[in-house]
Amino acid sequence: MFQSFDSHGDPTAGRARVTLLREWLDANELDGFLVPRSDEHQGEYVAPGSERLRWLTGFAGSAGVALILRERAHIFVDGRYTLQVRDQVDLSVFTPESLIETPLPAWIVKNIGKGARIGFDPWLHTIADAKALRKATERVGATLVAVEKNPIDELWSDRPAQPLGKVEIQPIAYAGELARDKLARLAAGLTDEGVIHTVLTDPASIAWAFNIRGSDVPHTPLPLSFAILSAQGSHYLFIDGRKLGIEQKAYLTQLADLRPPSALDAELARLAARGGKIGLDPALAAEHLRTHVEASGGEVVMLADPTRLPRATKNQAEIAGTRAAHRRDGAAVTKMLAWLDRQQPGTVDEIRAVTALEEFRRSTGEETQMPLRDISFDTISGAGPNGAIIHYRVSTATNRKLQAGELFLLDSGAQFQDGTTDITRTVAVGEPTEEMRERYTIVLKGMIAITLLRFPPGTRGSDIDAIARVAHWKAGLDYAHGTGHGVGSFLSVHEGPQRIAKSGTERLAAGMIISNEPGYYRTGAYGIRIENLILVTPPEALPGGDIAMHGFETLTLVPFDRRLIKTELLSREELVWLDAYNARVLSEIGPMVDGETLKWLEAATAPFSHGV
Amino acid sequence: MFQSFDSHGDPTAGRARVTLLREWLDANELDGFLVPRSDEHQGEYVAPGSERLRWLTGFAGSAGVALILRERAHIFVDGRYTLQVRDQVDLSVFTPESLIETPLPAWIVKNIGKGARIGFDPWLHTIADAKALRKATERVGATLVAVEKNPIDELWSDRPAQPLGKVEIQPIAYAGELARDKLARLAAGLTDEGVIHTVLTDPASIAWAFNIRGSDVPHTPLPLSFAILSAQGSHYLFIDGRKLGIEQKAYLTQLADLRPPSALDAELARLAARGGKIGLDPALAAEHLRTHVEASGGEVVMLADPTRLPRATKNQAEIAGTRAAHRRDGAAVTKMLAWLDRQQPGTVDEIRAVTALEEFRRSTGEETQMPLRDISFDTISGAGPNGAIIHYRVSTATNRKLQAGELFLLDSGAQFQDGTTDITRTVAVGEPTEEMRERYTIVLKGMIAITLLRFPPGTRGSDIDAIARVAHWKAGLDYAHGTGHGVGSFLSVHEGPQRIAKSGTERLAAGMIISNEPGYYRTGAYGIRIENLILVTPPEALPGGDIAMHGFETLTLVPFDRRLIKTELLSREELVWLDAYNARVLSEIGPMVDGETLKWLEAATAPFSHGV
Repeated sequence: MFQSFDSHGDPTAGRARVTLLREWLDANELDGFLVPRSDEHQGEYVAPGSERLRWLTGFAGSAGVALILRERAHIFVDGRYTLQVRDQVDLSVFTPESLIETPLPAWIVKNIGKGARIGFDPWLHTIADAKALRKATERVGATLVAVEKNPIDELWSDRPAQPLGKVEIQPIAYAGELARDKLARLAAGLTDEGVIHTVLTDPASIAWAFNIRGSDVPHTPLPLSFAILSAQGSHYLFIDGRKLGIEQKAYLTQLADLRPPSALDAELARLAARGGKIGLDPALAAEHLRTHVEASGGEVVMLADPTRLPRATKNQAEIAGTRAAHRRDGAAVTKMLAWLDRQQPGTVDEIRAVTALEEFRRSTGEETQMPLRDISFDTISGAGPNGAIIHYRVSTATNRKLQAGELFLLDSGAQFQDGTTDITRTVAVGEPTEEMRERYTIVLKGMIAITLLRFPPGTRGSDIDAIARVAHWKAGLDYAHGTGHGVGSFLSVHEGPQRIAKSGTERLAAGMIISNEPGYYRTGAYGIRIENLILVTPPEALPGGDIAMHGFETLTLVPFDRRLIKTELLSREELVWLDAYNARVLSEIGPMVDGETLKWLEAATAPFSHGV
Repeated sequence: MFQSFDSHGDPTAGRARVTLLREWLDANELDGFLVPRSDEHQGEYVAPGSERLRWLTGFAGSAGVALILRERAHIFVDGRYTLQVRDQVDLSVFTPESLIETPLPAWIVKNIGKGARIGFDPWLHTIADAKALRKATERVGATLVAVEKNPIDELWSDRPAQPLGKVEIQPIAYAGELARDKLARLAAGLTDEGVIHTVLTDPASIAWAFNIRGSDVPHTPLPLSFAILSAQGSHYLFIDGRKLGIEQKAYLTQLADLRPPSALDAELARLAARGGKIGLDPALAAEHLRTHVEASGGEVVMLADPTRLPRATKNQAEIAGTRAAHRRDGAAVTKMLAWLDRQQPGTVDEIRAVTALEEFRRSTGEETQMPLRDISFDTISGAGPNGAIIHYRVSTATNRKLQAGELFLLDSGAQFQDGTTDITRTVAVGEPTEEMRERYTIVLKGMIAITLLRFPPGTRGSDIDAIARVAHWKAGLDYAHGTGHGVGSFLSVHEGPQRIAKSGTERLAAGMIISNEPGYYRTGAYGIRIENLILVTPPEALPGGDIAMHGFETLTLVPFDRRLIKTELLSREELVWLDAYNARVLSEIGPMVDGETLKWLEAATAPFSHGV
């Protein structure tokens, strides 16, 4: 299994560990220390040895930060984790705080006194974060103190070693462009910006640029590493040599000077001393890198990671790969839903649904000679009220049977070598209520509205997010998340900068893969989400039109639960799309399944309308 | 007539005047001088004596700036005026430049050399503009030099004096809140911001805060003036006393110390020297005020004009007034359209349409004892290809007959004491083509989509702009302007900060009046725009809903040309709205018209569908 069902968080050790940390505070004349969940690469998933926040507090969420003061200790989490944090930390030691209501800098301004010295590890905070923290501490007359060595690493006696996941070369058939050519493009871009070097700190950027994949963190094939790109073409890759086989080493040596990660500081210092601007992405790069370059006499330029846009706009090989991955994944999820429909209500629980789905993904991958590499995130398997918890993660403690009269929300994804998937389907167990059907149909209308949209070049994700909500709003409903996030190509299932959300200021460009996932959540009762991945198509002239328009190609191929669709609430255009989608699902997935699954698929994809 | 039909712009004098200005450059050791169209208040309309750009260049557009260098002269205009500027200036003297392609600061970086000294009048540029200009000149090693006295004012021998339009008190029945109470609210807001004084430089802000109106500029009832608001409640109003009758002077003396505009600098210097923060809106206040306050020892705080949000969110009296104004204006425009429909194609020209409309507005105002105070902007009266020019202004030179087979676009508005209107209707002259009907219906769909929208508190104008474009985009069409602008209450027809546009970052709040005006323009052929004003309604609980939702109330009451509506392209929801709107127009406007107009109105508002 790629997923475990432990509740992870363990509140018992927090008190003793905080005591140890406070002794360190005393010894170092500090009044506080910040422990974020992030690692040196600021990714969503971190290696076990980087789970410092969990070690210290017991909290196992994917985002958060603790501030340990001499007398008090606070843990800051966002809206996803306000309930979970109370289960996972010792509340007599840690006071939970809301990152949304009071971001950490604002909290510091309100609660930290003059003269206080707050320590932080400059490797674990981005340049932008550190700037905001410094501004807040200075405003109240306190000081933000960068520490040389993270105290947790000294106190944590059985801290796991850094991972040594094997690196593999992503074949050109799936990558679509030689790393050599990508690096040349990136170098030319640096020249245009007047920058001599830039540091890549996001392993996904390095994986994309060098056409490699790794296995250092769960669910995302990342090789933890750093790189320095040079406008002159002499690049450096800082990676532990033990992750490389002979072939990988030979390959990478063609592209860059290979160095151990420990050599990054020395190399940067050398380049900084030689002069010329060094680019760092303030939203991604560690504050340490900024101060280190400047202390070495270099000039730092704030420069967005240059791989982000080329990585987001997939090439033809990546698009072909993701289409194939979605056919394979569509077959697997179809098998799972057909199987689930054959089970008696009350006999399957959320964990069994997860294990069954992973089994179907695994077996479908084997049948198609494209093995399942991982799931792309911990499956969200929520029955009844658990479905209303947007980022629910099932554990043995919360596991629940799928009961008659309930909705079941299943949000999952796969990592195949040719592509990353992410799909949500919500199904009825037994007989759904009219309210469930009405709201499911509203969510479906939102998803179809995005699917059918055409839009001119220059349109941003923020311009169209509300189009998925028109039907919700007319019914007095909404959902508290964006409509879609970017998705990588055998990389992270959450990839920027593309997104469909109020905050999505990036222009949508041909080749971007985005999720299309409106939802509706009734706390304590049920959750509905429908998610397809969609691909931005190139501008296309329309008959009689003035402007070539982008559109979306749907990648995901799994039917919706027709028991939940109130067709009388759909427009003719929506019904026509639904029938066309079902016909396509049957024609693409039908040949990959058989027996009872095929029968189920035929029924699930039968036309709703007859020649309307 | 409130509108003239001269072509205004006169290219003949430009050469001689530029020669005079260059002599002044020599005498003052400057290499260039900036002449913007703006006045000291940065408004859309300026007094005749502030038309310095027109005097110098001949260009009569509402926005632009000239840069006169020793050897060359450039005039920068936006997309609305790229054609017009070429007719109105001497092209052997002035080179037209595009403000959109190359904003002035970017042009300076590209074209101005090291050491150049560029003069500007700090009264005519905002703090933000001056900052951008200074940054650009400094970047190339040039200098931006503030001049004490604008050279145009010395060279322009017959320059009209500053206007002395009479000020009147806006009755509480229409203003809805005593000026005393508004000023107390504003003072309390300053205290919250930690600011002791703030300068109001926008006459619309002063008109709103003091419940006065003026007549210094065309089409907007503005009293040109400045004010200093104080957190302690001792306010100053800088206005020429000759604009005030005994009653107005007595009224205003209760609210503020009255001073002549020439006393502003001295008073500001005195307040600045006393210490305490002084607020200035960087987007509205003249650069002169910033440097003057700082030179006088004061601390400037960048603070948005505190009247903008309270002014934008109309109170119950303002809402009642605007509804009444729209009924009156609806009757006038209905009479005009009925009259136009009785004329033979080819007999009415664009100017006659404007004069007829103004006559109907005037007579309807007299009948209802609420005289037409002004039109709210120069009527856009565009037949055939002229309708495709988004900001077309008819002149004797461009005047065109309304011919059979053409569309006629009529965008106009009125200033009544109880409210400001703005309405666009597009009508067919003779038989329209199928393409015209299809595109008209697409535009109508966009307008209805906004009208029927519900949305949660916090929604910004930028979130919903695209909702008006969904039908356009599906047909490969679009329109190159925002969907709606804010409208004042017997104030400016273009009022911020509310708007429905990509750039509309202000949250929509109950009481805001906004236009809803999608369009479609086929260059050289025809223009279509349909515009209603809409009012943001308070959040309202919907049956079965979770969240109370805002909506829009339509204020404008004039039927659409049914010959242009392809009902088969409308959804049932759209048709139901259209019939309900028509029924409302008939019931509200019907009693205000009679004879042939009433017959025409009955036919124009007949139901499309029968109980669908």
